Amino acid sequence: MSSFAACVAHAEPVYLPTPMGTERFNRSAVNSSALKILRYAETERHQTFCGPTSLAIAMNSLGINDPTPVSLYPYHLVTQDTVFTPANLAIKSYEDVEKSGLTLDQLAQFSTNLTLSASVLRATDLSAEAMRTRLIAALGQPDSRVIVNFSRASLGQEGGGHFSPLVAYDPASDSFLILDVARYKYPPAWVSFKELDASMRTTDPTSRLSRGALIVAPAAAAK
Amino acid sequence: MSSFAACVAHAEPVYLPTPMGTERFNRSAVNSSALKILRYAETERHQTFCGPTSLAIAMNSLGINDPTPVSLYPYHLVTQDTVFTPANLAIKSYEDVEKSGLTLDQLAQFSTNLTLSASVLRATDLSAEAMRTRLIAALGQPDSRVIVNFSRASLGQEGGGHFSPLVAYDPASDSFLILDVARYKYPPAWVSFKELDASMRTTDPTSRLSRGALIVAPAAAAK
Repeated sequence: MSSFAACVAHAEPVYLPTPMGTERFNRSAVNSSALKILRYAETERHQTFCGPTSLAIAMNSLGINDPTPVSLYPYHLVTQDTVFTPANLAIKSYEDVEKSGLTLDQLAQFSTNLTLSASVLRATDLSAEAMRTRLIAALGQPDSRVIVNFSRASLGQEGGGHFSPLVAYDPASDSFLILDVARYKYPPAWVSFKELDASMRTTDPTSRLSRGALIVAPAAAAK
Repeated sequence: MSSFAACVAHAEPVYLPTPMGTERFNRSAVNSSALKILRYAETERHQTFCGPTSLAIAMNSLGINDPTPVSLYPYHLVTQDTVFTPANLAIKSYEDVEKSGLTLDQLAQFSTNLTLSASVLRATDLSAEAMRTRLIAALGQPDSRVIVNFSRASLGQEGGGHFSPLVAYDPASDSFLILDVARYKYPPAWVSFKELDASMRTTDPTSRLSRGALIVAPAAAAK
């Protein structure tokens, strides 16, 4: 019984405002790319808008700042509402996303429709080693952004499937910093790669496929 | 002519994603209070909503997370919309704030109506030395937050009067980090105290009083 309990126990995420989270931040996240992402962090306005919100943060941090809301004219900023272009509304309506969110493939389609290059890393298609390598490589590219799609339950958090941008990697603890867009629930969290990988290998009941990560980049920068 | 030009020249703000801005951030802003404020950074949704947005960030970072929008039930988060309680709408309507924003005293009233203690530091009531001391002291208090009210033009930025939260102080450069809520215009900026003080000593044409700073705290923690 105790060995079973040990088996299912989770290494708790290390949240950012704690001393340990701050120490990791200080040594691994104070760099230009991470600060560009943090500069556009925002809270999802509906509890199912983690995908559109993550995409808006990624686009703004890449300097892609259209489509912009009329209220900010003549300035430019992508928002979790403006990513719903006519082409994206055809994939899933605003109202339906409010009801049930997006799948990983749908968020990739949203990205492509917004002129980004988008690569889906489905967790079950890659070994853990390959996934770690791909995530670290993408974080190291100034012109790419990573959005992870994971199961909160698998991390010991409250909730189901979730999207959020990845900000940084801390080699010493082999953990990634997730910029949680549900800021009313959780602060940014350092999650060990082992836990993150397991949470991406869970199955999204809507798509019946595993979760994983989405790497987006300006189309011109795509390799 | 050239000496006149030198007279009006501004020390440019040092923006966060630049190497110098990042260096200052690394040495002076990676601490628990600053990260709590950054964790709730958001963009004003209307170009005149700098006051309500700054207040929402300050309240969330203090752990005061009501009034919350229905869309986030059962979770809690103050937003730039929910600060418009009936008592605050009586001070200035949402529509009128959309047209012309708030004055420093009105933002203080909004704060008081939301159960905060609120101290207005009107720049012309204090010497520069006293203002610096008050700002640094408030940043050092875990349970208080500083919102500065300044003239963008005075800093060489585009725009007029503006509110934004203050995040950190860097003694080596005698500069403060302003978390600009108009993120579609400017990144977070390190501004030398000399420039910040001058920009707070400008007159708000609506109130005909000088700008300055607002220090808010949970009412129970007020000294």
